[in-house]
Amino acid sequence: MDTETKQPQELRIVAATVATQIETVMRADLEVALAGCDPLLIEVLQYSLFNGGKRIRPLLTVLCSRCCGRDDDALYLLATAFEYLHVATLMHDDVIDRAEQRRGQASVTARYGIAAAILAGDWLHARSMHLIGRLTGAEGLEIFCQATASMVNGEFEQLRYVGDTNTEERHYFAVIRQKTGNLIASTCAIGALFAGAEPAQQHALATYGDNIGAAFQVVDDLLDFLGDTGATGKKTGNDFIEGKITLPLLHALSRADTGTRQTIEALMRGDRTQPEAYAHLYALIDRLDGFNTAEQTARQLVDTALDALAIFSASDQEREHVALLKELACYILARKK
Amino acid sequence: MDTETKQPQELRIVAATVATQIETVMRADLEVALAGCDPLLIEVLQYSLFNGGKRIRPLLTVLCSRCCGRDDDALYLLATAFEYLHVATLMHDDVIDRAEQRRGQASVTARYGIAAAILAGDWLHARSMHLIGRLTGAEGLEIFCQATASMVNGEFEQLRYVGDTNTEERHYFAVIRQKTGNLIASTCAIGALFAGAEPAQQHALATYGDNIGAAFQVVDDLLDFLGDTGATGKKTGNDFIEGKITLPLLHALSRADTGTRQTIEALMRGDRTQPEAYAHLYALIDRLDGFNTAEQTARQLVDTALDALAIFSASDQEREHVALLKELACYILARKK
Repeated sequence: MDTETKQPQELRIVAATVATQIETVMRADLEVALAGCDPLLIEVLQYSLFNGGKRIRPLLTVLCSRCCGRDDDALYLLATAFEYLHVATLMHDDVIDRAEQRRGQASVTARYGIAAAILAGDWLHARSMHLIGRLTGAEGLEIFCQATASMVNGEFEQLRYVGDTNTEERHYFAVIRQKTGNLIASTCAIGALFAGAEPAQQHALATYGDNIGAAFQVVDDLLDFLGDTGATGKKTGNDFIEGKITLPLLHALSRADTGTRQTIEALMRGDRTQPEAYAHLYALIDRLDGFNTAEQTARQLVDTALDALAIFSASDQEREHVALLKELACYILARKK
Repeated sequence: MDTETKQPQELRIVAATVATQIETVMRADLEVALAGCDPLLIEVLQYSLFNGGKRIRPLLTVLCSRCCGRDDDALYLLATAFEYLHVATLMHDDVIDRAEQRRGQASVTARYGIAAAILAGDWLHARSMHLIGRLTGAEGLEIFCQATASMVNGEFEQLRYVGDTNTEERHYFAVIRQKTGNLIASTCAIGALFAGAEPAQQHALATYGDNIGAAFQVVDDLLDFLGDTGATGKKTGNDFIEGKITLPLLHALSRADTGTRQTIEALMRGDRTQPEAYAHLYALIDRLDGFNTAEQTARQLVDTALDALAIFSASDQEREHVALLKELACYILARKK
C-alpha cells in the first residue's frame, strides 16, 4: 500500500512521523535481536526492511490503538511486527514469482539468492510472532496466525482460479479477503486489542481493515489495467499475462453476450504475452463498463469501512485518530500508484 | 532423527505409541485448522506430514513433560507443534537445496512446485507458533522463536564457512548448536515449561536437548562419510561435494602436518565431484584418526546430556521417563542411518 498520491496534509504528516518512529524502533529491535548474528543475515534484513516502504501496516496498528485510547512506546514495537510480517511475505512472494525488482531495486532473492530470501523471511516471520505474542498474548497471536494461515490459503485458491473464466465474483472476493483483507483486519484488530478496546470497537476496526484491504486490492487490480507506468513503476497488463481473473474482467464477463464471452475465453486461452491480445481484452472490458463498475465496488468497500467507524464518537482526542483512519480509507480510492 | 536401528525394545514401543498419538492429534488439528481450505493446500500438508516420519521431536516434548509430572491430551497438541515446525523447515530446505527426494519419495517442491513448498511451510510455521503461544504463553513462544531465529542464523553462518579450511571447531559447533541443538533444546524446555517444571529441571532438559541435538548432528556428519548407503538411503560424500567442513575433517586438519594440510586444501579447492578426490580425502581423514575422534566427541556430548538428567531422581514414575530419555540419547550414538 502506498500513500503518496493526493494524501491530505494532516494524514501525510502523521504517516511520516509514525514511519520515522517505526524505523527507529525497528533499528533498536534488530540491534537486540541480531546481536552476534551473521553479518550477511544482518545485511539482508537491513536491505529488505529499509528501502523506502511507506509503513502503512504499522500506521494502521498505531491509529487503531490510539482510537481506543492507548499510545505508548510498546505500541510502536507491536506495530513493527506487522511491517516484519509484510516484508517476510514480500521476500517469499519474490522467490515464488522469481521477481527481479522490488520497489525499484533488486529484490532480495535476485541480489542475495533464494536461500537468503527464504531464510530471512522465516526469521522475520518468527520475530513478528514473537513480538505479537509477547505484547498481546495468546489472543493477539491467534488473530495474527489465523490471518497468516488464511493468507496462505488465499494464495492457493488464487492459483486454482488462474485462467478460469468461470471464476465467480465470490471466489475473487474470497481470495482478496484472504490474501489482503484478513491481514489488514488483524493489523487493526490487534492494535485495538493492545489498547484494551471493547469487543465492539475491536470488531469495528477489524471490519474497517478487512474492507480497506479489499478495496486496496480492487484498486490494485484496476491499476494493473489503468495505471500510469511512470507513476506506478509497474507495467500494465501483468495480471492478464499471468492469467489472473480480476474484478474488471469479472464485471465485463457478467455483462458479455455469448459471442463476446467466447472471444474473452479465447483470449485467456491464447498467447497472453501478445500486446494485441491485451489491447483487445482491454477494449472489451472498457466497452462492457468493467472498469467503472470495479471502481464503484472499491467505493462501496470504502463506504463499508467508513460505516464501521461510526461507533467511535467519544472524546475529541479519539475523534482525531478516527478522522485519520477515514482519510486513509478515502485515499485508497484516489491513489494512482 | 531416526530411531529404527538397535533401539531398545521399551523405547521402541513408547516411540511407536507416541508417534501414533501424535498422528491422531495432527489429523484432528488439521481438520479444524483446514476447514474450508483449498484442496491443494490440504493435499500438500497431508503429503508432507504423513510420510513415515519418526516423530522424534514430539516424542522429546512428551517425555520431557512426563518427566516433570504432566501427561494429558493438550500435551500431544503441543508436541505436534514441533513436528509442524520440523516439516516446515524441511520444505523450505528442499526448496533451497533443490532437493528432489525426501524420505524416499518426491519432495514437496519437486512434486508440487516452489510456491506450494514455500507457502505450505509458512502455513505450518504459523500454525506451530499459534499452538505454542496458546498452550505455553509468551514464555514458551519466546523460547521457540529464539530457537527458530537462531536456526536461521546457523544456516547463514554455515554458508559463510563453505569450503573454508580455516574454519575452527568452535565455528562448527556454533553452527550445529544453532541449526540443530537449540531447536531440540527448545523442544525439551517447552515440554518442561508446559508441565510447570522448576527452572532447574527446565534448564537440565534444555541442556540435555542441546547436547543430543549436537551429538545427532556429529553422527550425521560421520554417516556422510561412513554410512551404509543401503541403510541411510543417502549417498556418502555429499558434504564434501557441497564444501561443508565437518568435524571429522576438522579433527584431521588439526593433526595434519603442513604438507597434508596443503593437500587437503587443494582437494577442497579442486573439483569436489570427482570420486577420486573424495576417496583421497576419506583416506587422509582416516589416517589422521578424524573419524574416531569425531565419534568420541559425539560420545562426550551424549555424556553431557546424560549428566544433565542427574537432577531427576524423584518418583519411580518420573524415573521411567528419564530412563527413556537416556536410552534415546544413547541410541543416537548407535544409529546407522
